[in-house]
Amino acid sequence: MPEDPSLAQLGEWDLIERLAAFAPAGQFSDDAAVIAPGGPVVVNTDVLVDGVHFSDATTDAVAAGWRTAAANLSDLAAMGCTEVIGLTVGLVAPGHTPWSWVEGAYRGLLACLQTHGGTLLGGDCSGGHQRMLAVTALGRLALDGRGEACAILRSAGLPGDVLVSSGPHGLSRLGLALLQQELGADLQARIPAELSQRARQCHTHPVPRLDVVGALHASRPLQRPWRVAGTDSSDGLAAAAAAIARESGCLALLDPDRLPLDPAMAWLPQAAQWCLSGGEDFELVLALEKEWADALIGRLPGCRRIGQLTEGTGDELLVDWVASTAAETNRLPALDMGGGYRHFG
Amino acid sequence: MPEDPSLAQLGEWDLIERLAAFAPAGQFSDDAAVIAPGGPVVVNTDVLVDGVHFSDATTDAVAAGWRTAAANLSDLAAMGCTEVIGLTVGLVAPGHTPWSWVEGAYRGLLACLQTHGGTLLGGDCSGGHQRMLAVTALGRLALDGRGEACAILRSAGLPGDVLVSSGPHGLSRLGLALLQQELGADLQARIPAELSQRARQCHTHPVPRLDVVGALHASRPLQRPWRVAGTDSSDGLAAAAAAIARESGCLALLDPDRLPLDPAMAWLPQAAQWCLSGGEDFELVLALEKEWADALIGRLPGCRRIGQLTEGTGDELLVDWVASTAAETNRLPALDMGGGYRHFG
Repeated sequence: MPEDPSLAQLGEWDLIERLAAFAPAGQFSDDAAVIAPGGPVVVNTDVLVDGVHFSDATTDAVAAGWRTAAANLSDLAAMGCTEVIGLTVGLVAPGHTPWSWVEGAYRGLLACLQTHGGTLLGGDCSGGHQRMLAVTALGRLALDGRGEACAILRSAGLPGDVLVSSGPHGLSRLGLALLQQELGADLQARIPAELSQRARQCHTHPVPRLDVVGALHASRPLQRPWRVAGTDSSDGLAAAAAAIARESGCLALLDPDRLPLDPAMAWLPQAAQWCLSGGEDFELVLALEKEWADALIGRLPGCRRIGQLTEGTGDELLVDWVASTAAETNRLPALDMGGGYRHFG
Repeated sequence: MPEDPSLAQLGEWDLIERLAAFAPAGQFSDDAAVIAPGGPVVVNTDVLVDGVHFSDATTDAVAAGWRTAAANLSDLAAMGCTEVIGLTVGLVAPGHTPWSWVEGAYRGLLACLQTHGGTLLGGDCSGGHQRMLAVTALGRLALDGRGEACAILRSAGLPGDVLVSSGPHGLSRLGLALLQQELGADLQARIPAELSQRARQCHTHPVPRLDVVGALHASRPLQRPWRVAGTDSSDGLAAAAAAIARESGCLALLDPDRLPLDPAMAWLPQAAQWCLSGGEDFELVLALEKEWADALIGRLPGCRRIGQLTEGTGDELLVDWVASTAAETNRLPALDMGGGYRHFG
């Protein structure tokens, strides 16, 4: 067997044996995994496909694994999970794929789990034309004093709620632009090394904001029932606000003076557009009452108010700008809620 | 929009909206699914890839969906689940895929859930070079009187346990042979229409044996602690027996006079080989003490004793024949434990 055999050289059983080394002992020895008892379980599936969600040009194997796990864990955070149970991995790859790529991807998955909790629960593997990771993550919700699950729902928003972002937006899109060398040479030369490094890191190793859920619990005003609307910003900040607005039957108003830009990239011509619809920042966008929002912002560095929910739906316009005159509205960037990607394009 | 648009014509959001119609109302409106409280949860992931696990030549879209769900639910049965919670689907397909194929696959998935319980919990979709369904199924175990989870584990077998098969083996492989027209014309002409129809059905619409778990509970001798070893025969009967033997530290002895053949196909030259290693019959292969095994066989039509577990491991030989002389052993077919498929070949 060569030092870095292909999957065809390894064969399915040897491959599974090597993958089992990433899981707790005995975890791969049955048909499926039993989950330890505890609070309400949340389940989420994300599929990442080579050439669509990652590529050798921008994402090495470890980063592909990390991003796959992080995207799933971000959805668990967006549902309000306080604990990651773990994940299963459906791996598809051509037979000529070197083991080292698979090993790197699983190292990335495991590193993300070791940082944020949870274990590799199991999975399946198959040959196929294209590398692909289908990950299902399982997490747990906390129960409140009355035994109700503390879930974050897109539909839980009410008019008057404050819209909050857990962090800045646009950095991941800048990282992608740098990795793809799509910025002109002039602009690229003006990006400070610190920003460049941070933006790439943000794109290749996004951080699922499970810590925000803990901060939400800790900042909850006394005697207040659990009611938090929210989602993650994987498809972009504007799309996240639109999803909350649509499911809550409200209109989301964003404040142009409170765009959650990273100060180091605010001078870029694309900054506002990437902030609104760059996607894959994996922050949480939340709608909650003012007192709770203020307490959360006070507790969580980087968390800021970005707008509010108001009455009024409008089938088309779910996000608009807070602006008192038409002239002001016209100077603002168009709000693209379509999501950052066309997967079937 | 044409009557049967391609996924590229539909776009991701319209596609998700159409897929949501297969799930309970509101199920797709959040980042992930919350599972209702209850007994211990079991999770299993299976990936089915076009050209590897199904193909237009042998499996239409509905059958591809059904088989994907059934393969997953069979793993839940093999773990001892008494209830199917539901499943998530990671769908990958090229942009030119017609909506009708996706609709057919989801119809097949849903038909399997409607027959065996559970709902569509959520999922993800992406473009890609090849159609693929990555399904994660969730089920529940019953608790015994002492609050212990009644799981079926491959490792729970003991020397002296009776090996039981929940039904005949080889029919699915015959169905595949008929669909692929790999039998010679002479042999094919001798297959009765009833057998042909049943074998094809067995291949395209396998039945996950969740009913066996109910029968196991109902036939459990009084006061007997829960101890059942087992797995499903998705990779073949011999591979299932080998898996139990390996994880239980025993040798599995199969009785050549008790091969679980379907009587209607026993005359085929390939019958014994397909029975042992054809694969994808999705029956349960169990190891349990004699009194319980007898009660189960008495209760469950088609269930039969096929051998036993004995002391002795042997690194290579995990399944052997019950045979008193070398001459007898030599007339028996070779036991192929390699699994029916080479996914990376």
